This record gives sequence, structure tokens and C-alpha cells, in this order.
Amino acid sequence: MTAVRSTLPDDARKVACAALQDTLVDLLGLSLIGKQAHWNVVGPRFRSIHLQLDEVVTAARTFADTVAERSAALGVPPDGRPETVARDFTLPAPKEGWVRDEDAVRVMVESLQEAIGRLRERIEATETADPVTQDLLIAITADLEKQRWMFDAENFPRES
Amino acid sequence: MTAVRSTLPDDARKVACAALQDTLVDLLGLSLIGKQAHWNVVGPRFRSIHLQLDEVVTAARTFADTVAERSAALGVPPDGRPETVARDFTLPAPKEGWVRDEDAVRVMVESLQEAIGRLRERIEATETADPVTQDLLIAITADLEKQRWMFDAENFPRES
Amino acid sequence: MTAVRSTLPDDARKVACAALQDTLVDLLGLSLIGKQAHWNVVGPRFRSIHLQLDEVVTAARTFADTVAERSAALGVPPDGRPETVARDFTLPAPKEGWVRDEDAVRVMVESLQEAIGRLRERIEATETADPVTQDLLIAITADLEKQRWMFDAENFPRES
Amino acid sequence: MTAVRSTLPDDARKVACAALQDTLVDLLGLSLIGKQAHWNVVGPRFRSIHLQLDEVVTAARTFADTVAERSAALGVPPDGRPETVARDFTLPAPKEGWVRDEDAVRVMVESLQEAIGRLRERIEATETADPVTQDLLIAITADLEKQRWMFDAENFPRES
Amino acid sequence: MTAVRSTLPDDARKVACAALQDTLVDLLGLSLIGKQAHWNVVGPRFRSIHLQLDEVVTAARTFADTVAERSAALGVPPDGRPETVARDFTLPAPKEGWVRDEDAVRVMVESLQEAIGRLRERIEATETADPVTQDLLIAITADLEKQRWMFDAENFPRES
Amino acid sequence: MTAVRSTLPDDARKVACAALQDTLVDLLGLSLIGKQAHWNVVGPRFRSIHLQLDEVVTAARTFADTVAERSAALGVPPDGRPETVARDFTLPAPKEGWVRDEDAVRVMVESLQEAIGRLRERIEATETADPVTQDLLIAITADLEKQRWMFDAENFPRES
Amino acid sequence: MTAVRSTLPDDARKVACAALQDTLVDLLGLSLIGKQAHWNVVGPRFRSIHLQLDEVVTAARTFADTVAERSAALGVPPDGRPETVARDFTLPAPKEGWVRDEDAVRVMVESLQEAIGRLRERIEATETADPVTQDLLIAITADLEKQRWMFDAENFPRES
Amino acid sequence: MTAVRSTLPDDARKVACAALQDTLVDLLGLSLIGKQAHWNVVGPRFRSIHLQLDEVVTAARTFADTVAERSAALGVPPDGRPETVARDFTLPAPKEGWVRDEDAVRVMVESLQEAIGRLRERIEATETADPVTQDLLIAITADLEKQRWMFDAENFPRES
Amino acid sequence: MTAVRSTLPDDARKVACAALQDTLVDLLGLSLIGKQAHWNVVGPRFRSIHLQLDEVVTAARTFADTVAERSAALGVPPDGRPETVARDFTLPAPKEGWVRDEDAVRVMVESLQEAIGRLRERIEATETADPVTQDLLIAITADLEKQRWMFDAENFPRES
Amino acid sequence: MTAVRSTLPDDARKVACAALQDTLVDLLGLSLIGKQAHWNVVGPRFRSIHLQLDEVVTAARTFADTVAERSAALGVPPDGRPETVARDFTLPAPKEGWVRDEDAVRVMVESLQEAIGRLRERIEATETADPVTQDLLIAITADLEKQRWMFDAENFPRES
Amino acid sequence: MTAVRSTLPDDARKVACAALQDTLVDLLGLSLIGKQAHWNVVGPRFRSIHLQLDEVVTAARTFADTVAERSAALGVPPDGRPETVARDFTLPAPKEGWVRDEDAVRVMVESLQEAIGRLRERIEATETADPVTQDLLIAITADLEKQRWMFDAENFPRES
Amino acid sequence: MTAVRSTLPDDARKVACAALQDTLVDLLGLSLIGKQAHWNVVGPRFRSIHLQLDEVVTAARTFADTVAERSAALGVPPDGRPETVARDFTLPAPKEGWVRDEDAVRVMVESLQEAIGRLRERIEATETADPVTQDLLIAITADLEKQRWMFDAENFPRES
Repeated sequence: MTAVRSTLPDDARKVACAALQDTLVDLLGLSLIGKQAHWNVVGPRFRSIHLQLDEVVTAARTFADTVAERSAALGVPPDGRPETVARDFTLPAPKEGWVRDEDAVRVMVESLQEAIGRLRERIEATETADPVTQDLLIAITADLEKQRWMFDAENFPRES
Repeated sequence: MTAVRSTLPDDARKVACAALQDTLVDLLGLSLIGKQAHWNVVGPRFRSIHLQLDEVVTAARTFADTVAERSAALGVPPDGRPETVARDFTLPAPKEGWVRDEDAVRVMVESLQEAIGRLRERIEATETADPVTQDLLIAITADLEKQRWMFDAENFPRES
Repeated sequence: MTAVRSTLPDDARKVACAALQDTLVDLLGLSLIGKQAHWNVVGPRFRSIHLQLDEVVTAARTFADTVAERSAALGVPPDGRPETVARDFTLPAPKEGWVRDEDAVRVMVESLQEAIGRLRERIEATETADPVTQDLLIAITADLEKQRWMFDAENFPRES
Repeated sequence: MTAVRSTLPDDARKVACAALQDTLVDLLGLSLIGKQAHWNVVGPRFRSIHLQLDEVVTAARTFADTVAERSAALGVPPDGRPETVARDFTLPAPKEGWVRDEDAVRVMVESLQEAIGRLRERIEATETADPVTQDLLIAITADLEKQRWMFDAENFPRES
Repeated sequence: MTAVRSTLPDDARKVACAALQDTLVDLLGLSLIGKQAHWNVVGPRFRSIHLQLDEVVTAARTFADTVAERSAALGVPPDGRPETVARDFTLPAPKEGWVRDEDAVRVMVESLQEAIGRLRERIEATETADPVTQDLLIAITADLEKQRWMFDAENFPRES
Repeated sequence: MTAVRSTLPDDARKVACAALQDTLVDLLGLSLIGKQAHWNVVGPRFRSIHLQLDEVVTAARTFADTVAERSAALGVPPDGRPETVARDFTLPAPKEGWVRDEDAVRVMVESLQEAIGRLRERIEATETADPVTQDLLIAITADLEKQRWMFDAENFPRES
Repeated sequence: MTAVRSTLPDDARKVACAALQDTLVDLLGLSLIGKQAHWNVVGPRFRSIHLQLDEVVTAARTFADTVAERSAALGVPPDGRPETVARDFTLPAPKEGWVRDEDAVRVMVESLQEAIGRLRERIEATETADPVTQDLLIAITADLEKQRWMFDAENFPRES
Repeated sequence: MTAVRSTLPDDARKVACAALQDTLVDLLGLSLIGKQAHWNVVGPRFRSIHLQLDEVVTAARTFADTVAERSAALGVPPDGRPETVARDFTLPAPKEGWVRDEDAVRVMVESLQEAIGRLRERIEATETADPVTQDLLIAITADLEKQRWMFDAENFPRES
Repeated sequence: MTAVRSTLPDDARKVACAALQDTLVDLLGLSLIGKQAHWNVVGPRFRSIHLQLDEVVTAARTFADTVAERSAALGVPPDGRPETVARDFTLPAPKEGWVRDEDAVRVMVESLQEAIGRLRERIEATETADPVTQDLLIAITADLEKQRWMFDAENFPRES
Repeated sequence: MTAVRSTLPDDARKVACAALQDTLVDLLGLSLIGKQAHWNVVGPRFRSIHLQLDEVVTAARTFADTVAERSAALGVPPDGRPETVARDFTLPAPKEGWVRDEDAVRVMVESLQEAIGRLRERIEATETADPVTQDLLIAITADLEKQRWMFDAENFPRES
Repeated sequence: MTAVRSTLPDDARKVACAALQDTLVDLLGLSLIGKQAHWNVVGPRFRSIHLQLDEVVTAARTFADTVAERSAALGVPPDGRPETVARDFTLPAPKEGWVRDEDAVRVMVESLQEAIGRLRERIEATETADPVTQDLLIAITADLEKQRWMFDAENFPRES
Repeated sequence: MTAVRSTLPDDARKVACAALQDTLVDLLGLSLIGKQAHWNVVGPRFRSIHLQLDEVVTAARTFADTVAERSAALGVPPDGRPETVARDFTLPAPKEGWVRDEDAVRVMVESLQEAIGRLRERIEATETADPVTQDLLIAITADLEKQRWMFDAENFPRES
């Protein structure tokens, strides 16, 4: 007997909650590496990047909460423990130590770019399984694409 | 040449920043396992515990930010990346999956109790090295002790 | 001649507005029985449930307003009069008189569960007729599923 | 054994709570028909009336909550379920479908007028039974009389 | 010569200010024992009761201020010194030391119940002497009755 | 045919609205002379009195609005035109030109004292005619008595 | 010896303070007749006009305060007592009793129009005497011209 | 080399960004003509329409910003320069000069009606190209349909 | 017969309203090109410039509203339609497509510089015609000169 | 078995909690006598002192709460019951009845002076026992010293 | 080549910026001596004067910022360094050490009086050079004259 | 006889107040040179630095106020007059005239660095004299070290 019952049939729940769990790990990871860069960025653009990174962190934390609670609402316990995040998070991330401002910008563009690619696959995957979950993933994608654009615009002109 | 210069002599900085880095990991870990319990708690006291856990998370996140920025201010880059947290975080934590309300309360008492014990050691360790860092650790301890009390009071009567 | 013209062809409008009228009755009914339980709940969890029920009522009232105004916007006058709600509202509801806290929780789980089931049918029904209406129904479902989870988590362990 | 004990003797409680239950039904009914008119009003004064009706609804909802909680506080469970409201609500109300602005104004004047007449009788009835309940009914009357005036002033010149 | 002159004849002032002074002691006492329970409550319902008790304290403090200032406004200096409160406060109160949650609830029901009984006598006593003072006592009674109900509802089922 | 119909029988309306019209003039007059003193006060207590007078003005304006709208709500048009206020306002008032701080305090005590005496007569007069109007007059009296006390306390020691 | 000394030479002060005293009377009068119309307006546009009039009153009260305090700042005590306002206020004003909405609009246009004409003369008169006072009169004119336009636009089409 | 890279394949980006650019022009145009009517409306309903038009302008500006930033986020620079808006904006609009209130209402109904029709086509066109863009267009449509209804309801009874 | 009458003689009104209409076009144009640059700016200073441009847009929109309403208040209907802005707006503006950050800064300096030059001519032109209009133009100039300075300071060192 | 476990060894806890309990009594006592003076002060400085005393009360209440909760957090139940405060509170306090403004100031200086002296002893006593408690006592001392200064400055020139 | 270019011809800029630099020094000096008196005032009116002085400081700081930024906007770097303020500030100021309340009032009247006299000269001097600068100086004068009046009124009766 | 008595013995007071006076001068100086740089900075990073400098100024002003009031609370009048600041302030500061952005950053790093060094000496000096003063100096140091880090991070890479 599960603690919380689902409002979805088993197959649909499995698809939706897998998408949600993967998204949860990406978002928690983004919130940790966003803070890491927020603290360690150096260079003439320090203040701008420092503040911009905090907006990514705030967005990632808020969405992580919504995503995890939606999984619980569908009857599957979400997993956001440190070891799970460390094991499953594979997006590009800043190295240990101080990070030059242009490197912080570049790594955020790459990390968000890859996160968005995965979200778009999950949007497709959940379309028939659960349009409510799909709608949430669409909202997250819209926001991360906006964040990515702002770092990419800041990244101009790119070398090669 | 380091990116950010210190206002402390080398020895003092080493002591202070080691205390800060360890505290950072404890706080980031607490914020992750607090959220984990926040999402997965079940039982008649769900709502109370669910809300109370979010206050721990908010406190832990705010203090983590202050702690990390203080380390940076002292010239040592803080490390809060997922793999670092997973590797160095050793406080008691909830298991995967749904957590009964009394178990959530018990694990938070234990986890906060242990975090406080470590903080008190660091308060002593930093007294001569850096009273500014010590003052911050005292403030964190005061808050975590208050949080621990509230879970412990909720934990009554304890089974032996 | 109707007072407000539609932006949808006749068939689509009929489908969309039928879904909206049925949803309006469910939401107005939920707001009334949520308040009924809010006032009459008794038992050791009184305060928690009392407050939680008010969040359901607030959500139901806000969504009812949006749903009714969308029907008007599509050219069909919504009907939320007392006799209409009493006649068409069929979700599980608390009995007259004091309600024990665990009964209040149980009846809310059942009532929300059934409301969600109906909403999911309407989401399907409106997909081609009017994606704008469908989007609104998806948002309502997401919220009610979150509310249902929180009562269901509180409902643990369930008898049988 | 009742769930909530009274602070009034039996006779006084019966008088006070009968007045409160009747007032509860009037207020819940007013909140439903106020919204009905809010959604369905048409005509050149649409915006003014649409907004003014929402103020009646807000007042009616707030007072309904206070009235119901006072009944509970006196040890009698209030009844605001859909079927009760539909059965006992007898104030003038708008018809189904679009409502012309002057008709919305007229029906609100009549409905508030009748509600006020009944409240004045209950003010008298509760004077010796419970001055605390009487004081609440006086406050509700003051507000509804203000609302009624504003619709009546808007209603000028009246035909016949 | 008194410092502040009265707007009431001597007899009326004596009656009104006696009622106010007695009410002041009850309210200051309630604010102290409410805090006492707020700090010392233990048990699974800790958080709920802890927060609920603070609402009683806030209400008692606010009303105490109004009551004392009304006495001053009528030309009689109010007395809220520690020794006066200790000497004249006779409502049921929690014992020294930790208080189990159900005991905190029970003692608040009894204490509020008795405070309300006394207030109702003073409402009668001040009717002809000073309707302005009476109106204030009615408002206090309404609020304390609401508080009492919420503890009593939480107190269900009572042991006989 | 009157523009706004009454909810009171003719006799009661006449009594209630006479009390309201007289109160309206007193309050509008108080708001004008309060401002007059606010602008013209001089002396070492300038700042204290200047600010305190503005609180009287704010209270008088707010109550004047409520009183006038209640008269309208009862079907009698209130009269607050300059010539009416000048003709009917007879409370003590500051002279033209600069006013010493102790004179400003003394005239406010006298003016409020007299206004309160009249209000207490109207409270009695409206008791059977309209308890709703009476309740409003009680609230105004409570506030003006508080204002009067604060000026009177400031007026200590009084000469003779 | 005057209580407050001036920062202007005698001639300039006389010109500036005469302009300020006249403006004070106009503004206090406008605030009283604006409220009079606010309370007594009837007709289908009641709500719109009722709210719009309150904006005139708020503006008039705020400017009256600034104008009077400026006169005091220049060493001339302002006079805003009831009898002064009644004696010196000569702008068009509503009659006693209920006022039809179109009449309220018309009288406000006329009253503001005339007030503006006088202000423009005072702007010219104070140009050399005191540019600070002139600047204040310009600001008042700008606001009253905006208010006048909004009533005049509402007044369309005008008879004759 | 483009300044901002896309997260969409070329074909999808072309479809999505064409829809966004066309929507941008419609929204910027609506914000300009909404203000034009806001300033120039005359007639007895001036205040209502004046305020209602500002809500359209605020909505149009907010959505224009979101739409343009989404286009940038997809790697296509949006174009909202004066000459572009003037060239591409073709919705019905008010003439130069004063506008009677009923004409302002009528032109807004027509302009919003046409804007909605075009948005519904773009919703269909972007469904497979980019569900994130589609979701944004759905949200805009929902809001404009609400605005249109409120003007249309105000437009009753329509001539012919 | 015009819809809104003027408070100025014909000659003065013509001068004042010509100045206002020209200013309106400049401000609406600035708000459009400010947004255009806000969306399309790229380069390392993206975030700073992106935010700074939005402050220009907000100022331009607010002043445009005040300017247009002042023209209406003076009896001349303002013209802010898309075709009017496109035809009459001649300040320097960004080209279509992405804009490098230093180019965005440079074009804003030039555009504001020219706008200020024209405003200063209008300040002179309106001095005798209408000091109220002149005062508004002075306020706009003060703000635009502040905005221009901040871009110009950012523009350092300028090439040649 | 105690209800709440301590994070301190027994000796340290005893020292810290004795200091906290004594401070609690001082603060609760100060809050009661501060209010007593707030209500009973008379004299030309009434308003200033009346407001200033409320700031002491607010500070005393807030610190009392923190102090009591810290004691609970350390495992010792705080005691703030009326009889405890009356028995253990020994700071100088105002007499019964009206208090002249200069006497109110003088007694507050003495009472705060003595409270500060005791706090400084407790700061020393807790230094090794519990730096967290010491830090709290330091913060309370800082605030009370500021309050004392402001009364002492007001107390100038002192007699002898 | 200067860093920031001017929008004024050379002669006008020289006049305007000299006036601004002198005003900047006066305002920064006033903010320092206002704080000095705020901290060191003693006597029975301590609280009143202490608060009133902070309002002068806040005003002086805000105006200093506006004045300095206007100078920068006109292409002349403002100078507010400690040595500049010390060298050029010549307004009356409090002596070192405690200041009796009546002395604080007197010195503020004198200091503001002299500052106002200088501002009025600069208003004249900038009239043709730069009406925008003149307008700012007028606004500062209006505020300082209000502040001066309030201290002067408080200064009554003055010795000789 | 001093105006304000101390709560510290003479020796301790001398030590504590010397530390406070020196800190006051540093903070007032920092607030002046922070503003100087805020107004005069030029270069591509203008906006970032301009905003960041204002945060230093706000912090310096707030701490200066607390420091001065603490000195007064200890019985020693603080000295923050222009000539004192000019004489005693010796931290590095920007030169007269425009300041390039990288120079503004560099001078702030140096100035804050030196201020911090002095504060750390005073923290040591006040440890036994007055732990309350020490605690305040620790809080100031923590904040200035954070500010220094942010400028130093922005200062990367430094020229050797």
C-alpha cells in the first residue's frame, strides 16, 4: 500500500514521474552550481554576473519545489537527497575555485542549453501521459530559455 | 596570485575558512534533506511538519549564502558543488521514499543535534583566529538550536 | 441576438462552455463544502485542517471566477445561482453538524479525487474545441491535485 | 455530548443561533447571486456595476465567515451546504442568462432591502439573548445598508 | 484635583472603571500565561498550539491596551503593575515547567471560559453606566469566545 | 418622490438623521479647527502638538464621511457645505493667528469635551430609533474620548 | 514681535501670503463641496462620479495643507476656520439635497474652471514676489486642470 | 554568425518567430491605440472607459515584452521600431481627435476581435513547431478574450 | 463646438499644445526605440544596459501620459497613433537586428541629446504662453538630462 | 526524563539558564511597568514619553520571547507566570496612579540602569558556559543602553 | 576632452554648476551638523528634536544627491569630499559636545535661515542660465523653508 | 556634571568611546567618498559601480548612526562635524573630478582594506573594556569585509 494514491493510471504515472524526477535533479543541480558560480565569480563584470546568477538559483529552487510536489501529488515520492543529486546530475558545471566572469557566463549557457534540450524531450514524452505535467515542463522551459538567452547575449562576441 | 586577497594572516584564514567550508556543507546538506522530508512526509501531522521543515530550509539556505560569501571575503573560494556536498555531508538524513511524520521529526532532531555539536567546536576553534567568523557561527548555532528545540518538543513523549 | 458575441464557432463554443459550466458548479460546490468543513471540524488536528480547508476555498473561489468569466468571454452566460449549484453538484461532501478531523480529511480527498477525474475528461474533450479553455482546465487540475495530495498525505495511514 | 460547549444558557443560545443560521443563509445566497450578476451583467454601465457587485460579494463572504464561526463558538454547528442555501434562500435574485445593467441594480436594491428588514428583526430578537451576537448583526446591517444606498442612488430616477 | 478629568458622572465612572480594571487584570494575566504555555508546550501538536497561543497573547495585549487607555480616558488611572496582576489574577493557569499539548489546550479552554463569564457580567453591569465601555467589553467577549471555541474544538473528544 | 428610499420608518429616520446631521457638523468643524491649530501652533511643544492635532483631523474626517454616508443610506441627504458648517458649528475653537501650544491644548480639550457631551445625548436619543446609528455614535465617542484624554493628560498641571 | 519670522522682505511676503490665503480658502471650500457632492450624487453614473469626487477632495485637502504651511513658513498665520471659509468662498457649488449626476459634473467643471482662472492670476502676481510660492501655485493649477478636463470630458455632449 | 544561438531547429524557429513578430506588432499597436483612446475619449462614460483602456494598455505592454524576449531567446531579433509598427499594424483603430465613449468601446471590440482571430491561427501554426511559444500565445489569447468580453458587454445593446 | 473647453486663450493654447504634441511624439518614439534596444542588445555589458534601457522606457511612458493628458486638459486632442509616431519621430535610433552594447549606449546618448535640445527650445517657447506647461517640460528635461549623463558616463572613453 | 533535551553539558546549562530566567523576569517586569507608565503619564511632555515608553515595551516583549525560547532550547522550562514575575522582579518602578512626565523619565532611567548592571554581570557569567547565550545578552544590553540614554538625555538638567 | 559632455553652452554651464557646487556643500554640511545635533541633543524636548533633526538630515542627503547628479549631468564633476565640505561650509553649526535642546533649535533656525538666503540668490542667478537647475533650487528652498518654520515655531517665545 | 551618565566605569568608557569616535570618523568619511565616487565614476562599468557604491554609502551611514548613538549611550558625546571628519579621516580616497571605473574600484578596495585593519585592532582593544561595543565593531567589520570582497572580485585581474 502506497502512502499517497495517484490520480493517473500506472503507465501514465510512470512516464510523468520519471520526467519529473529527472527534471528535479537538473534543477537542484542548477541551483547548487548557480550558487557556486555566484560565490566564486571574479572579474570586471563580477556584480552583474553575481546578481544574474542569483536569479537562476531562485528560479531553479522554485521550479524544483513545484516539480517535486507534483511528483508527490501523482503518488511517487521525489528524491532530492545530496547523494541522488550528485549521482544523477550531469550538466556542465563550474570547476572548484575562483571562476572568471566570462567562464561563468559560458558554463551557464552550456548548462542551460543542455537542460533545455532534455526538457524538450520530456515535453514530448509526457504529452499523452499527462498534459498537466507537460504544461509544467513547458513553463520551466520558457523560463530557462529566457535565462539562457540573457547569458548568451552577454557572451557576445563568442570566440569561434 | 589569488583572485581575492585576504584581510587575515595566513594561519587565521586557514582556521576560519576550514570552519566555514565545513559549515557550508552542513547547511547545504540540511537544506536538501529538509526539502526531501518536506516533500515526502506523510501522516496526521503532515501540514505542521511540512511547513516547519520549510522554515529550516529557508534558514539553512540563508546561512549557507552568508557562510560562503564570508569565506570568499576572506580570500578562500567556497565549495558547494553537488559532488562536494554528497561527499562531505554526514549528518543523519531521511531515507528514500515516503517518511512518516514522527520519523521526519526524529531525524531532524538528530541531524540538527549533530550539526550543533560541530558548530560549537568550530566556535571554539575560531575564537582567536577570527572573532568575526566566530560571531557568525554563534548566530547560526542560536538559530539551529531554536529549530532543534521545536522539533524536540514536538517529539514528546519520546520512546525511551 | 445574444448580448456578448463569441470568438469561437458554434460547435467549439458548445463543447468549451459545457465543460466550463460543469467545472463552475464543481468549484462553487467545493467552496461551499470547504467552508462547511472549515467551520464544523473538531478534533486534535482542528487548527491544521481548519487552515488547510480555507486554502481550498480560496483556490476554488478564484478558479470559479476565472471559469465563469471565460464562459462569458466565449458568449455563453455562466450559471452559479444557489439552485443550480444545489441541483448539479454531486461530489462527496461532509454531513450536517460537527465533523471529526479525520472525516473532514477523508471527505476532502474523495471530493477532490472525483473533481479531478471529471476535469481530466474535460481536458480531453476541449483539446480541439478550444486550447485556451483546455489550458485553464489544466491549471485548475494541477492545483486541485496538489490540494488532494496534501489531504491524502495527512490521511496516512488509511484504514483498509 | 456536544463537540463544542456553549458559553450561553440553552434558551439564549437557541435564539442567537437561529438568528445566526438564517443570516448565514442570506449572506451565502447574496454572495452567490452577487457573483451571478457580476458575471452576467451587460449594458453601458457594465464596468461600474461589475466592480460594485464584487464589493457586495466580498462583504457577504467575510460576514458569512464571521457569522458561521460565531455560531460554532456558541456551540451550534452552522450549516452552509449547497442544498441548505438553495432550500432556505428566498431573497430576490437575478434570472438565468445575461442581465441588463439597470436590472442588476434593481434586483440588488430589492434583495439587500429585504435582507436588511430581516436583520433588523433579528437585532431585536437577540437583544436580551446575546448582546455579542446582536452587535455583530448591527455591524452587518450597517454595511448592507451602505451597499443598498449605493445601488439605490445608482437606480435614480426610478420608473414609477 | 485629579490629573485627567472625566466625561462621566461619578457613579457611572465608578462602575465603568471597576469593570475596566478587572478586565485589565484578566487580560494581562492571560497574556502572561498564554506566553508561559507558548514556551513550555510539548507533544505532537507542539507547533499548532505554539502558534495558536501566540494569537491569544496578541489579542490579550491589544485589548489590555485599549481597556487601560479607556480607563485613563474616563479619569481613573489603570493599574497593571506586576504585583497587582499577581494579586488579582485568578483564572486557571498552567503549572510551572513543561506542559503537554492536551493540557495546554484544556487549561486555555477553562481560563477563557471563566474570563468570558466574568465579561458577560460586566457587560450587564455597564449597560446603563456607560454604553461606550459596554461596547468595548462586547468586542472583547466576541474575540475571546472565538478563541475559546477553537481550543474547545481542538479538545475533542474530551474525556467526559 | 425621494431619490434614495429609507430602510427605517419615518419617525425613526427623523430622529436618527437629526443626530447624524448634528454630528456631521461637529466633525467637519473639528477637522477645520484641528487643521487651523495644526498650522498656527507655536511654542516649545510645537512638534508634538502639531502631529497630535493631525490625528484628530484624520479621525474627524473619517468619521464625518461615515456619518454622512449613513445619513444618505437612511434616505436623508447630509449637508456639509461651508455655510452650513459655519452656521451650525458652535464648539470652542482657536482664535485667528498664532496659537501658543498650551492654548492649543486647552481649546482642544474644551472642544472635544463639549462634542462628547453632545454625542452622549445622541446615543441615548437614537437607542430605540436606530441601534445601527447608535452603534456608530458609540464608536465615535470612544475615539474622541481617547483623543480628549491625551490632550488633557498633556494639559497637566492645569491652572486652577 | 511675530511668532515666526519671514525669509522674505515685507512687500514680497504680503503679495505671496495674500495669494496663499485666497488659495487656501478656495481649496478648503472645494474639499467641502466635493464631499457634499460625493455624498449626495444620484443617478446612473453614481459610482463613477462618487469615486471621482473623492479624488478632487483628496487633492484639495493635500494642497490646502501645503499652502497653509507655506504661509506659516513665510511668517503669516493662515486662516482656515469655518467662518472664514464660509465668508470668503465664492466658487460655484452644489445646492442642498440630492444632486443628479450630470448636475454634479457640471458644477464641478464650473467650480474648477473658476478656481483655475484665479490661480493663473496669482501665478502672475507672485512671479517676482516669490518664485517658490509661484512654483507651488503652478503645481496646484496643473492638477486642478487635469481634474477639470476629466469632468469636462464626462460632460460631453453639453447642452447648448 | 548570429549573436544569440537558438534552442530550436531552423524550420521550427522560423515558424515560431514569425508568429512572435506578428504578435509583437499587434500588441505594440494595441498599446498605442489604447492610449490614444484613453486620452481622447469623451462622453458620460469617460471615467469608466478611460480606466478600462489603461488595463488593455498595461496588458499589451507586458505581453509585448514577453513576446519580444521570447523571440530573442529563440535567436531571432524582434523588431518593434516605430516604422515597423506603423507599417505592419492593421487592426481597427480610433480616428484622430476626440472619440465618443461608445465609439471607443466599439473600436476596441473590433480591434481585439481581429487580434484574437489572428492569435488563434498562430496557436495552430506553432503547435508542432514550438509548444513553448504556443503556450505563450494561448495565455495572451485568454487575456485578450477577457478584455474583449468586457468591452462587448459594455457595448450592449448594439445597434443592429 | 469642441468636446473639451480650454482654460487658456487661443494663442497661448496653440503654442502650448504644439510643444506638447511634439514632445509626445519624441517620448513615444523614445519608449519604442528604448525597448527595441532593450531586447536586441548583445555584448559583455548586456545586463547593465538591458536594465538601464528599461528605466528610460518607464520614464518616457510616464511622461508621455502626462504630456498627452495635459494637452487634453488644454482642449486639444493629443495624437499618439502608430502612423503619427512613425511619421514625426526623427531622433537617432538603433538599426534593425542585434545591437552591440557600446552601440546601444552611443545611440541613446545621441537620441537623448537631441531630445533635450528640442525640449529646451520648447521651454523657452512656452514661458509666456503657459507656465504650467513650461513647468512640466522642465521636469521632463531634468529627468532626460540625468538619463543622458548616465549613458554618457558609461560611454567613456569615447572614440575621438 | 525531561521533555526537551539540552545541547549543553549540565554545568553550563545551569549557568546559562539561570542567567536567562533572571533576564526573563527583568524583561517581563519592564514590559509591565513600561505599559503602566505609558498609560498613567501626565504633563506637558505626555505625548513624547507616551510613545517612547511603548518602544521600551515592544523591545522588552520581543527580547523576553527570545530569552524564554532560548531557555527552552537549552532544555530548561522558562517561568514567566504572573506570580513569578511579581515575586522576582525588583527593579525600580512607577507608583500606582498618575505619574508626572519627569517622574516617568526618572524611574525609567533608574530601572534600565539597574537592569543593565545585572545584564553585564550575566554577560561575564555566561562567557565560558555558553557563548551563544552570552551573545544574546550582549544584544539585549546594547538595546537597553540605547533606551536608557534616550531617557537620560531627556532627563537633563537633572536636579542635583 | 571631458568625460561627460554638457547640454548647456559654456557660460550657462559655469553659472549653473557654480550654484550647484555651493548648494552641494551647504546640503552635505547640513546633513553632518544635523546628525551631530541629533546625537548630542539633551533636555526635556530630547525626543521631539532628535526625531525632527533626522528629517532635516534625510532631506539634506536626498537633495545633495540630486544636486550632485545634476552637476554631473551638466558635465561638471561635483566635489563632496570631506576636505571640500570642511573648507567651504560656513553655515552656523552646533559646538562640540552635548547641546541643550533650545540651543539645537536655535542653531538650526539660524543655519537654515542663512542657507535659504543663499539659495534665493542662486535662484535668481540661474534663471536665464538654466531654468532646469533653477527649478531644482526652488524645490530645495521650499522644503528648507518648511523645516525652518517648524524649528522657528518651536523656538517661541524667543528671548528678545 | 555630564549630561548623560555612563553605565561603564571610567577606564572602560574611555577605551570604548575612543574606538567608537575613530570608527565614526572612518564611516562618515567613507560615506562621503563613496558618494563622491558614485557621482564621478565614468567608464563602461559606470552603472554597476554607481549602484554598488551606493550600497557602501547606505551601510556606512547606518553604522555611523549606530556608532555615534552608542557613544552617547556610554556618556561621551560623539563628534561628526565637518571639520572633525576632514581633520581625522585618513583612508585612501578618490581625487577630485571624474574617476575611471577601474580606479573607483581600486580606491574602494584600498580604503575598505585599511578601515578593516583598524577595526580589527579596535575589536581587540575593546574586548575587556566593553563586549557590547566589541560586538558592534564585529558586525561592522563583517559587513565591510563583504563589501571589500565584492570590489576586490571586481578588481580581477589586478595589475600586479
